[in-house]
Amino acid sequence: MGRPRRADLRQALLLAAERRIDEAGLAALKARELTREVGCALGALYTAYPDLDALALAVNARTLDALEAALDAVPDGPPADRLPALALAYLDYAAAHRRRWAALFEHRMADGRAAPDWYHDRLARLFCHVEAPLAALRPGMGSAARARLARSLFSAVHGVVALGLDEKVGPMPATTLRGHLRVLVDALVTGLARPRPRR
Amino acid sequence: MGRPRRADLRQALLLAAERRIDEAGLAALKARELTREVGCALGALYTAYPDLDALALAVNARTLDALEAALDAVPDGPPADRLPALALAYLDYAAAHRRRWAALFEHRMADGRAAPDWYHDRLARLFCHVEAPLAALRPGMGSAARARLARSLFSAVHGVVALGLDEKVGPMPATTLRGHLRVLVDALVTGLARPRPRR
Repeated sequence: MGRPRRADLRQALLLAAERRIDEAGLAALKARELTREVGCALGALYTAYPDLDALALAVNARTLDALEAALDAVPDGPPADRLPALALAYLDYAAAHRRRWAALFEHRMADGRAAPDWYHDRLARLFCHVEAPLAALRPGMGSAARARLARSLFSAVHGVVALGLDEKVGPMPATTLRGHLRVLVDALVTGLARPRPRR
Repeated sequence: MGRPRRADLRQALLLAAERRIDEAGLAALKARELTREVGCALGALYTAYPDLDALALAVNARTLDALEAALDAVPDGPPADRLPALALAYLDYAAAHRRRWAALFEHRMADGRAAPDWYHDRLARLFCHVEAPLAALRPGMGSAARARLARSLFSAVHGVVALGLDEKVGPMPATTLRGHLRVLVDALVTGLARPRPRR
């Protein structure tokens, strides 16, 4: 066999890392195991990615692509329908890809470095899916406030999904969790459509 | 020195485990290090606690006590004031005790066992703090529905706090995070006080 091109090696390592995360979680991602599985020297990993963090971010970016595709598939409609449907699509993706999804939130850069700008831009694209229905719900809201609100809404939905799937607040059958999420997002939509004056 | 009584050993191990979690997180909790720090034999740990999981749960129960004390300190008032104040008190506790607080959600029993009933009862007491203002907000709601809603509300607030403190949805100065939480809980209070008819 010829020596694999760098792009092929990157792709092979990416898919191996994703499989490893799916099987055992982000904490199980180790350079030695990955290179053994891919059949390259340990040092070759560092010709393909600067470090293991960069590889983990590449897996997370692929997860964000898949998550975005799941949100793209939600049918268009008024915000009172679309926001709960987006929340349920998020739950469905998380439930179907537990470890890959958890890795999005578990990953920390080594030495407390910030994630690179491209990754933050990638995340921002995800939040656009929430900003669009918010713009319809609250046409008078400025774009910066809407961007912040989209992130809060995402975080709230994420909290219900994360603690629900882990059964951290009590037993949580799948249909119960869907019901909880629906009630929460309905209340948010109602409350956001009719903001009460701040005191 | 005389041989420590079992209750003393339990307490010493509990405090050492809490310190270890505060310093390095739940994943750093190791039997060998703890017993070395406490100055007892490795086997003595298992006379004090059935296993490391039981010790982690004991630390978490202490954290829940402290968290409950923080929520108890929130002044009484109408639900539209009390619910946001409880959310901010939760944020303050989490921000001040990051790793100890994270351990509440990171801990998994070995072999996928369920946490013991006493731990679930302990958790339920925490949610009572949310159920009380909800009862004032929605007097007609049954107690089972209220218990579920309290858990959803808690989870939503938790999501904003957890992703906010970790800066997972973007840069998040402390005052920004407080603002996000306030907007979210205000919207929930408004929406829950005036539920829209289900279609």
